[in-house]
Amino acid sequence: MKHGGDLSEAIAHYGGKLQDWLDLSTGINPEPWPADPRFWTDSLYRLPAQADEEALIVAAREAYQAPGETAIVAAPGTQALIQWLPHLAPAGDAAILGPTYSEHALSWQRAGRTAIEIHSTETLAHNVRHLTVVNPNNPDGRILDLANLKGLAEELSRRDGWLIVDESFADVDPAMSCAALCTNLPIIVLRSSGKFFGLPGLRLGFLIAAPHIAAHFHAALGPWAVSSPALIIGTAALKDQNWADTARAKLKAMAHRIDGVLEAGGLSIIGGTFLFRLAHYADAGALHEKLARKHIWTRRFDECGTRLRFGLPRNDRDLARLKEALLSS
Amino acid sequence: MKHGGDLSEAIAHYGGKLQDWLDLSTGINPEPWPADPRFWTDSLYRLPAQADEEALIVAAREAYQAPGETAIVAAPGTQALIQWLPHLAPAGDAAILGPTYSEHALSWQRAGRTAIEIHSTETLAHNVRHLTVVNPNNPDGRILDLANLKGLAEELSRRDGWLIVDESFADVDPAMSCAALCTNLPIIVLRSSGKFFGLPGLRLGFLIAAPHIAAHFHAALGPWAVSSPALIIGTAALKDQNWADTARAKLKAMAHRIDGVLEAGGLSIIGGTFLFRLAHYADAGALHEKLARKHIWTRRFDECGTRLRFGLPRNDRDLARLKEALLSS
Repeated sequence: MKHGGDLSEAIAHYGGKLQDWLDLSTGINPEPWPADPRFWTDSLYRLPAQADEEALIVAAREAYQAPGETAIVAAPGTQALIQWLPHLAPAGDAAILGPTYSEHALSWQRAGRTAIEIHSTETLAHNVRHLTVVNPNNPDGRILDLANLKGLAEELSRRDGWLIVDESFADVDPAMSCAALCTNLPIIVLRSSGKFFGLPGLRLGFLIAAPHIAAHFHAALGPWAVSSPALIIGTAALKDQNWADTARAKLKAMAHRIDGVLEAGGLSIIGGTFLFRLAHYADAGALHEKLARKHIWTRRFDECGTRLRFGLPRNDRDLARLKEALLSS
Repeated sequence: MKHGGDLSEAIAHYGGKLQDWLDLSTGINPEPWPADPRFWTDSLYRLPAQADEEALIVAAREAYQAPGETAIVAAPGTQALIQWLPHLAPAGDAAILGPTYSEHALSWQRAGRTAIEIHSTETLAHNVRHLTVVNPNNPDGRILDLANLKGLAEELSRRDGWLIVDESFADVDPAMSCAALCTNLPIIVLRSSGKFFGLPGLRLGFLIAAPHIAAHFHAALGPWAVSSPALIIGTAALKDQNWADTARAKLKAMAHRIDGVLEAGGLSIIGGTFLFRLAHYADAGALHEKLARKHIWTRRFDECGTRLRFGLPRNDRDLARLKEALLSS
């Protein structure tokens, strides 16, 4: 089980139907932006239009507060950008601040490039030309502040390398974004519509960088990279500031409430963002299995048997279901 | 105007609203497979599932009659595969049988690789390691038969290269597909859901090849490459054999009828498939403009001022509108 969010394996092992399961295995907002199909079903029948893509980029620039001097590239998911990165980055070794989301390292490895996991950015080995930081980090929520990121980017600039900052979970607190630093530093910011907006099936992600860096990704992705529904739904979602404000408040409140439930169940909270919580439990594997038998799917970690990650329940009923399962024998 | 299917430019130059225009600039089926949103809107809110992708591949294997020994890779549009090709193909020059769809050559050029246009496959220059053939060809409908393709693939096999066969328009006559040749020859077949199924906004395309070739593309695209709606709609569309049979008959009948209208308007048909018609007209630029003023958008060619390509009208009313516009002064 490398990733959350795919109940195929859960159902194969523990039975039940899709609708029986409470999926807490992801960091995806359980109350997604409501994508009313009336407004975009017709878009399936025409090629993604240039005008629609331009509107999406305008909306993304506003939502992500990216300076006018930066370029923004829309992609069919942040993962598509992660896939292209090692093919487009100048030759040289990459480091990834870990432990973190495994697909960064896997993508460099699949491309036949060297990517080492590091656990501190205080001194970067001489061979490191590119560095990837997930900020805030998944699964522990670690945050590098802007001064720290700026210093790293300046060091990598001297090495003609790139600082890749994956901000897939930054929507819950826009102030932590380093998009404003991209104008004169070799920083690549990745953003996602899958997590905060709760639309992972749509496949829509963004890259923000200086124009000369973004141009490589633009050329690699080519025309019509993003589906018409993603252009239309993405634009509307990114412009919906009221929804975003409400969603942030709701997620924050639910994060505090699930913490209480987890602690009452004997777990201790060791990190997270308002989209997921990381908890310590002595035998996390047994707890994962106990919850799975009750058709509650959480995220465990092969490399660490004392941690479980919990996505946020959608509502009181789902929170109560988790509480009951935790307290049951 | 490099491509059809984006009315943004048409509207900017000639006015009107989207719904005022009769778009004949594409080779996209004007009667698309009907993608009822009730069945897939919820899929936006979850990650594309492994089980859904497996079902899509089963449906594609059946629809495209790809042997079990081949591998099939689903991608967010055929263009996404065209973009990866020059990054994954072994070093060496590529040739493209032209004139054809411009994005093949552009993709190799954007990747910094050499791609020359050739006009005959009788003798391949010694430096050519890879060859791209669009079959049937866009815009002229030229068809290379299976014996010819097999001979080319055998020659490229001796050069350790690839034969790329873009079958984006092959759905109208499945017998022309060379998917069955992929098992023991270095052939890469590209298929599209955008044209025959009329779903270009969905972004869904396929690659069929021997497993050791397909593996490169699978690794390059990574996980969750295809959106959830594309997995679900694509599976249902590919399994709908009744719809496909009816669509083929309708397209064939409409192709014959538009030929009559074009000939009555003083054009002569010089090629095409049942998804588009290529016609000769002495001053194609002037005719393109005359039709555009009446909000009928056709495909002209910068490199050839005596040709226009016409997509198929949806119904009698649209056909009559074209006829009236052609015969007007």
